[in-house]
Amino acid sequence: MGERRRASFDLYDPLLARAAWSRITEPGDQVAGALVAHLGAADSLAWLYEVVDDPHRLALGALAGRDERPAGDRLVRAVERWRGRLPGLDPARELGAFGRIGGRLVIPEDPRWPTALDDLGAAAPLALWVRGDDDLAALSTRSLALVGARACTDYGRHVAADLAVGLVDRRFTVVSGGAYGIDAAAHRGALAAAGRTVAFLAGGADRLYPAGNTDLLRAVLEEGSVVSEVPPGSVPSRVRFLHRNRLIAAFSGATVVVEAAWRSGALSTATHAAVLLRPVGAVPGPVTSMASGGCHRLLRDAKAVCVTDAAEAAELGGSAGADAVTAQEGRHEPQDGLDEVGRRLWDAPPVRAHAPVESVARTAGLGSQETLGGLGHLELVGLAEQSGGRWRRLGG
Amino acid sequence: MGERRRASFDLYDPLLARAAWSRITEPGDQVAGALVAHLGAADSLAWLYEVVDDPHRLALGALAGRDERPAGDRLVRAVERWRGRLPGLDPARELGAFGRIGGRLVIPEDPRWPTALDDLGAAAPLALWVRGDDDLAALSTRSLALVGARACTDYGRHVAADLAVGLVDRRFTVVSGGAYGIDAAAHRGALAAAGRTVAFLAGGADRLYPAGNTDLLRAVLEEGSVVSEVPPGSVPSRVRFLHRNRLIAAFSGATVVVEAAWRSGALSTATHAAVLLRPVGAVPGPVTSMASGGCHRLLRDAKAVCVTDAAEAAELGGSAGADAVTAQEGRHEPQDGLDEVGRRLWDAPPVRAHAPVESVARTAGLGSQETLGGLGHLELVGLAEQSGGRWRRLGG
Repeated sequence: MGERRRASFDLYDPLLARAAWSRITEPGDQVAGALVAHLGAADSLAWLYEVVDDPHRLALGALAGRDERPAGDRLVRAVERWRGRLPGLDPARELGAFGRIGGRLVIPEDPRWPTALDDLGAAAPLALWVRGDDDLAALSTRSLALVGARACTDYGRHVAADLAVGLVDRRFTVVSGGAYGIDAAAHRGALAAAGRTVAFLAGGADRLYPAGNTDLLRAVLEEGSVVSEVPPGSVPSRVRFLHRNRLIAAFSGATVVVEAAWRSGALSTATHAAVLLRPVGAVPGPVTSMASGGCHRLLRDAKAVCVTDAAEAAELGGSAGADAVTAQEGRHEPQDGLDEVGRRLWDAPPVRAHAPVESVARTAGLGSQETLGGLGHLELVGLAEQSGGRWRRLGG
Repeated sequence: MGERRRASFDLYDPLLARAAWSRITEPGDQVAGALVAHLGAADSLAWLYEVVDDPHRLALGALAGRDERPAGDRLVRAVERWRGRLPGLDPARELGAFGRIGGRLVIPEDPRWPTALDDLGAAAPLALWVRGDDDLAALSTRSLALVGARACTDYGRHVAADLAVGLVDRRFTVVSGGAYGIDAAAHRGALAAAGRTVAFLAGGADRLYPAGNTDLLRAVLEEGSVVSEVPPGSVPSRVRFLHRNRLIAAFSGATVVVEAAWRSGALSTATHAAVLLRPVGAVPGPVTSMASGGCHRLLRDAKAVCVTDAAEAAELGGSAGADAVTAQEGRHEPQDGLDEVGRRLWDAPPVRAHAPVESVARTAGLGSQETLGGLGHLELVGLAEQSGGRWRRLGG
């Protein structure tokens, strides 16, 4: 411990520095995020090596002369937690190994970086480990997250796949978390429609987790991307799942929760999206289904818009004009255009027999002038016919 | 026509005058409503007999000296349409016949009048023909309308009955329209729970329409009421159905649409309720079900609150404090109370083997001090145990 530690790699290679930070920190480490944003990945790493075994320098506020508490305290605690990950740090080896399975590290300096993630501020990921299509900027541009419970129903699975197909038809990238249930159905739907899809994993991207989805995720990285902010070999812990959800929310133009029970993790994705001012949708389901309880909660609390098909999902995540849903008016009935007088008259005449005007007027509770005028109008639009001064309704 | 018409009954008997107006007008006749409100039922009827065959008197503005057009025009047209219903008008006979089947006319002057209907203004009904419990004021006080499509699914039927039972448990009157489908299920649920229920019919209350619901409606009038604003013998026309919907909406503290397609008449009840500033709820259903399309439309347009059970329905129609839904939190997990450090540590230790603090710290990405403190806390709440300085997770 008496000996000063030294990096065994070139700190000033941006990829190596970012890869190192990705290894040193856990997702969502805002102290690291702020530090790297402030000093840059290389200088902040150099600083870390400088102070990590020298509490005195750290206490004196080596960071740009600023040592205001509690920021100082937070920094001391941060260095304390980063320290344990420094021994054996070898980003060059990690990048090499990741490259050999076709992976690449995408960093904020890269034009392929999805700038939507920068909305996360200090909690933005420090780097992304990507397999498959690494142009995350392009994939993020017109994208929509479909998320939901692992323990979904056939209904949820069906709706998720349907939405994914419809979104691909509308040229959206379908984003999800690669998990069983709704996630898998969303990826599958996108693949079935020959569309682009991105899976954000909670563990390392080298391991296509969960095991039961290995084939699916392999197809995802062939047609789209498998992405993680934690370095290869990292296990997908519960906390990492929760932090992963913020990436899905930030990366995508909108998030739609397809099926989620009251305590589903998918609701945390919705919350992240809402905090980031991304539109949130929820698909309703039977109220008798526990699996839709979380969606209904979002709707009740007005935290999500009700989404029933791909057009409505696209409207959430798309551009205001082009993706607006045109009002569905359903079947047009012949009597739709009638005013109150017209509708009363259309109700009034007997359908089978022809009736005289006076009788129609009395039945409809209208005056004879109104009745004659109204029946004339009905005749014009083909809803009534007269024969020898007697009237009969047509249609309906 | 040359001879002046005269009423064959005592105009100044409020019941007879209101019964006559009910016969003369169609539902929602706002000219009649304004006239009766202005002059009273008897005087307005006397005025009508005076002017009906004397266009000159009418044109001169016999109504309190006011003859501003277009009000004057509207009045002329109104008299024209009322004229046809004056011959043979015999409210005393009608009331007698209705009384013989156990019916009673309830008028605004009656303490049993449901004053909630007065919110309809000039479109309020002029009288109500009631069979069964005629204390509509009491029935209206704590009431909720459950409405929906005739062409409902088993799901909708089940949910409607369930909601009705739950509302009865909460001492609500269940209001509906006596139709097939959702209406019938709502009435049935209320009856099954030995609760009070009111059916507003579009036709005369003497005829328990539709025929297939005769037995159900007979049960309704035994345990609650069957009500109509149109006099006995009136057929339930389409226009009357639409006007009937405004009564359901106005009478009830809130309206919940259980299942309705895009064009369902139940949506008009919801619209009436919204215009009257009554809360509106909609029950979601599968997005694959056309029968829930109207409900989803209401939710999408934020015209209704998402209602998934009787407690939520009661919250809409009840009093703010007593009927508020307490947040459903679902199953409580042992790790729920943990902070970020606690959750990371709870994730980190291997479940089977015991691990040393340094290893736990590295896995969790935490400093050793934080780790020791955090593990101590986990041990206190029973989520971790130590043995010889090595740690193991418990629970979960």
